[in-house]
Amino acid sequence: MKFNSVTPQVIEELTAIVGSAYVLLPAASDEMLRYSHDETEDLRYEPEIVLKPANAEEISRILQYCHQNFIPVTPRGAGTGLSGGALAVHKGVVLSTERLNAIIQIDERNLQATVEPGVITQVFQEAVIAKGLFYPPDPSSRGSSFLGGNLSESSGGPRAVKYGVTKDYVLNIEMVLPTGEITWTGANVLKNATGYNLTQLMIGSEGTLGVITKIVFKLIPYPGQTLVMLVPFRDEEEACAAVSHIFRAGIVPSALEFMERDAIEWTSRYLNLNLNLPEDIKAHLLIEMDGKDMELLFKDAEQVYEVLETYDVGEILVADSEKQKAELWHLRRNVGHAVKSNSVYKEEDTVVPRAELPKLLKGVKEIGEKYNFKSVCYGHAGDGNLHINIVKGDMSDEDWKYKLPEGIREIFRLCVGLGGTISGEHGIGLVQKPYINIALNEVQLKLMRGIKQLFDPNGILNPGKIF
Amino acid sequence: MKFNSVTPQVIEELTAIVGSAYVLLPAASDEMLRYSHDETEDLRYEPEIVLKPANAEEISRILQYCHQNFIPVTPRGAGTGLSGGALAVHKGVVLSTERLNAIIQIDERNLQATVEPGVITQVFQEAVIAKGLFYPPDPSSRGSSFLGGNLSESSGGPRAVKYGVTKDYVLNIEMVLPTGEITWTGANVLKNATGYNLTQLMIGSEGTLGVITKIVFKLIPYPGQTLVMLVPFRDEEEACAAVSHIFRAGIVPSALEFMERDAIEWTSRYLNLNLNLPEDIKAHLLIEMDGKDMELLFKDAEQVYEVLETYDVGEILVADSEKQKAELWHLRRNVGHAVKSNSVYKEEDTVVPRAELPKLLKGVKEIGEKYNFKSVCYGHAGDGNLHINIVKGDMSDEDWKYKLPEGIREIFRLCVGLGGTISGEHGIGLVQKPYINIALNEVQLKLMRGIKQLFDPNGILNPGKIF
Repeated sequence: MKFNSVTPQVIEELTAIVGSAYVLLPAASDEMLRYSHDETEDLRYEPEIVLKPANAEEISRILQYCHQNFIPVTPRGAGTGLSGGALAVHKGVVLSTERLNAIIQIDERNLQATVEPGVITQVFQEAVIAKGLFYPPDPSSRGSSFLGGNLSESSGGPRAVKYGVTKDYVLNIEMVLPTGEITWTGANVLKNATGYNLTQLMIGSEGTLGVITKIVFKLIPYPGQTLVMLVPFRDEEEACAAVSHIFRAGIVPSALEFMERDAIEWTSRYLNLNLNLPEDIKAHLLIEMDGKDMELLFKDAEQVYEVLETYDVGEILVADSEKQKAELWHLRRNVGHAVKSNSVYKEEDTVVPRAELPKLLKGVKEIGEKYNFKSVCYGHAGDGNLHINIVKGDMSDEDWKYKLPEGIREIFRLCVGLGGTISGEHGIGLVQKPYINIALNEVQLKLMRGIKQLFDPNGILNPGKIF
Repeated sequence: MKFNSVTPQVIEELTAIVGSAYVLLPAASDEMLRYSHDETEDLRYEPEIVLKPANAEEISRILQYCHQNFIPVTPRGAGTGLSGGALAVHKGVVLSTERLNAIIQIDERNLQATVEPGVITQVFQEAVIAKGLFYPPDPSSRGSSFLGGNLSESSGGPRAVKYGVTKDYVLNIEMVLPTGEITWTGANVLKNATGYNLTQLMIGSEGTLGVITKIVFKLIPYPGQTLVMLVPFRDEEEACAAVSHIFRAGIVPSALEFMERDAIEWTSRYLNLNLNLPEDIKAHLLIEMDGKDMELLFKDAEQVYEVLETYDVGEILVADSEKQKAELWHLRRNVGHAVKSNSVYKEEDTVVPRAELPKLLKGVKEIGEKYNFKSVCYGHAGDGNLHINIVKGDMSDEDWKYKLPEGIREIFRLCVGLGGTISGEHGIGLVQKPYINIALNEVQLKLMRGIKQLFDPNGILNPGKIF
């Protein structure tokens, strides 16, 4: 695909659509920098122009213009992505949805909410909790991520293990097609058997099929009570194995997070917590159960204890206050930041069937030995979703660049061999793209490319991503 | 699209693929009749040949052959559909999945199961319950419907209100494309952000995009306990209004079913139950709550009582034995059969946001008065999914044929105007096809037609359905 550049005339015509206050050009270098990276490693791609439209109509006019003039458009939420999805790798326009940030309605009668895509995840969660309602999806970046971005990357988070991921809460989407048409994808209903599921096709399409301009979410009653425990294990693989036993005992925790020893130690240093982990502890599970009845949660906890007694665990900490719960979650939510502050790294978002986690973890360590890299693993063990942080440490620049990708390839082959795939909740974007053919066969890729071509005949929307 | 007929040569070549024991021709008129209708009204379309392949490979060879020779293929599950989706309206081949009926694996470690599409829903449910696991989707036809058909029509059922519909339990699908390629759509994982969601695109595509040959389901722990109550209301609209109040009180029942007085009376007669409904009772709600703790269910029931006290209800019946629960469900599950045994009818599968049900019900009755038809309404009120059975009664044949469709059009316009759509769980198939443009706009239809064209360039698979 041959794209055109953003000439002075293009700048003029695009500025006429959004107004000059909402245009950024490379001259504004400091502000432009924000739109040149996301939270994926240290990648940087500067766009030729950043546009901040106010609504679907302006987005429609931008896309029509860019479609007709073969100018690439990269839609962008808050830029908290971990696969490079919001990066303008083919230059052109970055289209920021930051001004579409209204919570349009929280419909308490129907337990639904209509929002614009630029609403911050946590802001929305708190707004619905204030009405006794619950929007469970909680990606780690929820304090800054946009809901539109959550949809685009099919975001998950710890609570997915009980409540499902973002896609499970989306009833309907208003979108602008790359050719400019504005349409809803479905209806505001809990059940829909009317034509193909365009709503789910949009979710996880990483901004390549259309720009999301409104979202209708389903909400549920807020459960209110939680019970949180931190369980130390003397063996990493036992920690992973305990995960499926807990489910088998009939318990569905609202979170079941795995952290290797290094993950906790690095985070403890990063947050200046001075945790003194006993020498023999190799991993932790952070287990949360929720509900509206504390008594029932204690009963569940007893059942979890019975399962854990069959493993070699250290002293279990049950949080005895909201403050302590928040501290444990603060620890867990900062693992990513801690690892990343420590070294050059690459994060792989692997996912396998839950009970295959011990095999995945063991395999990752063996592959690390073979290719001489260290990894710090943590993640949503209840979903079989393991974040593998590969740290550069003392690996040579050359090995990092040329040898490591072979190691990553082996990790991904292992995931697929175990019935899993190469991204659970971060998306493919730019950085997993070289590995896509490990997860998807030629038939699947042909269908996906055909869908892309159908929605975006000139290929202007987020080019260079996924495949 | 111009299709070719099934000539003697075609019969010979198709027979060579599946073996003559698994071919039916029109001469076998009695057996053929079974494959000429489903449970949609009294429609009948006889195919030119019925094939009963054994596996994906045979299906692939059939589809390749028919693709190359422009012969229509209508995939068929158990034929329990309510929108005519399994009817061979363009003649050609009916491809029955009845021999693909193995439960391949119930994976207790991962809480997953792999099945073939011809497994009967209830057989599968009972097989997983025997292992302490739960597959919640329970369409009314579950005693005879196939799981493959449940996927194709995006089936729901009463429990959807708490547990979601069929689509929420499907992790991965093996399918044969109309061009013959065999592929999986995703991976066996709970979270997947790897490319477009082909799995959800297949679900609800009504056998127009591919033939399902294997399904990987997610399972959950079996809750075990239920509490069932039947609540009589003196006003239909109050019954509908109570539904969203129950949710607003923080209760998520495992079923919340609405039945008009006529629905119960007709069913009572149909089943010879001799229920004596007080004169002033106009509607009932059947409410089920489930969980693993009976004490908590009684607490929930108290909260439900508090909500119901604010309405004009009759004497509430709480089932005091498993036998009585089964009887209440038997009553509910037979409403459809009862209404249908009584008169020529048409069933419309409307769905609106939950709190708009009273408006829908009121509107349906007003439209009925205008067009001079009677309707019996019942359905999954917790999901806003109302089955409207229009009974012919003393309407003239001419009005039934020419005037009624205008009335149906008004009902569907009302649904869409209330934020709903024209099918919640039955699909569009053949019978709702004339109304599809009420629910879907030209942009949506263009995308859907484009997807169809991409998957099925010669348009051989289930032609004449949806759009």
